[in-house]
Amino acid sequence: MKLTILGCYAATPRTMTNPTAQVLEIKNHMFLIDCGEGTQVQLRKHKIRFSRINHIFISHLHGDHFFGLPGLVSTFRLLGRDAEMHIYGPKGIEKAILLLLKLGNSFTNYKLVFHELTSKNSELIYEDDKVSVSTIPLAHRVYTNGFLFKEKVAPRTLNIETVTRYGIETCFFQNIKNGKDIVLDDGRTIKNEELTFDPPKPKSYAFCSDTAYKPDIVPLIFGVDVLYHEATFLESQSDLAPKTKHSTAKQAALIAKLASVGQLILGHYSTRYASIELFKDEANEVFDHVLLADDGKVFDFS
Amino acid sequence: MKLTILGCYAATPRTMTNPTAQVLEIKNHMFLIDCGEGTQVQLRKHKIRFSRINHIFISHLHGDHFFGLPGLVSTFRLLGRDAEMHIYGPKGIEKAILLLLKLGNSFTNYKLVFHELTSKNSELIYEDDKVSVSTIPLAHRVYTNGFLFKEKVAPRTLNIETVTRYGIETCFFQNIKNGKDIVLDDGRTIKNEELTFDPPKPKSYAFCSDTAYKPDIVPLIFGVDVLYHEATFLESQSDLAPKTKHSTAKQAALIAKLASVGQLILGHYSTRYASIELFKDEANEVFDHVLLADDGKVFDFS
Repeated sequence: MKLTILGCYAATPRTMTNPTAQVLEIKNHMFLIDCGEGTQVQLRKHKIRFSRINHIFISHLHGDHFFGLPGLVSTFRLLGRDAEMHIYGPKGIEKAILLLLKLGNSFTNYKLVFHELTSKNSELIYEDDKVSVSTIPLAHRVYTNGFLFKEKVAPRTLNIETVTRYGIETCFFQNIKNGKDIVLDDGRTIKNEELTFDPPKPKSYAFCSDTAYKPDIVPLIFGVDVLYHEATFLESQSDLAPKTKHSTAKQAALIAKLASVGQLILGHYSTRYASIELFKDEANEVFDHVLLADDGKVFDFS
Repeated sequence: MKLTILGCYAATPRTMTNPTAQVLEIKNHMFLIDCGEGTQVQLRKHKIRFSRINHIFISHLHGDHFFGLPGLVSTFRLLGRDAEMHIYGPKGIEKAILLLLKLGNSFTNYKLVFHELTSKNSELIYEDDKVSVSTIPLAHRVYTNGFLFKEKVAPRTLNIETVTRYGIETCFFQNIKNGKDIVLDDGRTIKNEELTFDPPKPKSYAFCSDTAYKPDIVPLIFGVDVLYHEATFLESQSDLAPKTKHSTAKQAALIAKLASVGQLILGHYSTRYASIELFKDEANEVFDHVLLADDGKVFDFS
């Protein structure tokens, strides 16, 4: 599991900082999460192949999380894309994108599939045999979801040494991987534990931005390996957090602590502060395992 | 008259090249012409004060000329703008911008005034005592206008030396600037030419992008000081020009020659070519005074 931060600053794109967008590489997927203005340039800069992106998740329809999407949709066409593109986001996203295409007398030569979200409860929005994605309802000035990405438990892996020693034929391998014991020709039963290793522990990632402090998301994200939680403000501006429905670094850390997450990544910093290190300092007062997102940073959790 | 190129490349924003946007400084105005994705970052980079922009002219609603506008409109709000903003562009532009604001449960705390264009004939769309702006109907895959910016003839300037020598009082100065002769107390008539200098020759700038080769714009732009004309292709791809309704460097030069313009600036280059110098070489076969636009380049025509 690998996370590339394309942008993690609040409000507007600037010369050196980009609005929210990130790519989660998980089980061979490249999931694009949010798409602020300039995302397609950031994708190029960080050499992420456009063709590997088939699913885009948009948390909410504020410009700093969404205004890069119309251009990206157009660029996919110019690059000759023909694979389906799935876009998950709040109701209205389809109307907006289709209106912009229509005004340009334009189209996509690939299928755009919109999955519009309206529920105030968490729902499963994507699933295959290796990974699932669910929404995390957040509290912002406009309808907003975070997203929970979970790997599924992989099959057990063969212990080639013992399997070979017992002379077990390949036709039994799938059963063994599925957890079955094996009865040898001489009648002995070999326990599955002897023939396999435990699969790697499935990993999970929760993206929570933008949101006011919202402890009722804790059960949804409990025990995730990595939580990205917005931290727009420091304590000195803590009065602005509830007003603008954002969080402070300390509030993000409190959520991380309550949810017993493995790592907390902070982002969505207001650009008013001299150093983002201050966010880590304040979060560390509550929670130990704090990392700072920054544009271009890659977190490898494999 | 000063022109700052924020972006002048075709199709998509890239790491080192930006889609179309430029700022024309003329008679104390800062007119923003087109607004591709990333324009607000380019404005910051080139230290153009956002508050000086009160008029935005959008040629057509393709993404590479327009997808930076929603973000810019939002940023003006975040910067606390309260002055009116006038946006000139094809019909539909108001619906698009207002839909995007509405989806973000957002608004502007300044007045947005849309001037939607539908005419296939040139029309005067802005005028004050110093400058006028008219449309130049172009031929592209979607309804498109270029824009013609013209300074008005300024009043004549006083020749302080002769005015002082004749002892003329200040209450007559406005009449003199307006071209009137003066009768002195001793009955002598002093010709205006002796009391004033010619005003500076008014300047003019024509922006023509995107468009197929369209010689019927020649009468509209005849004799302009500066013509920006798109040149997406070189002769080696001249078959693509009519198909995509773009121009070659040579066609742009031909328009410049037919219209007897002072200077031709080329732009809107396809990124397929190794060097933009090739565009100048091909245009120079037809027309001598060719300049190349490039992102960040400033042309001072004062």
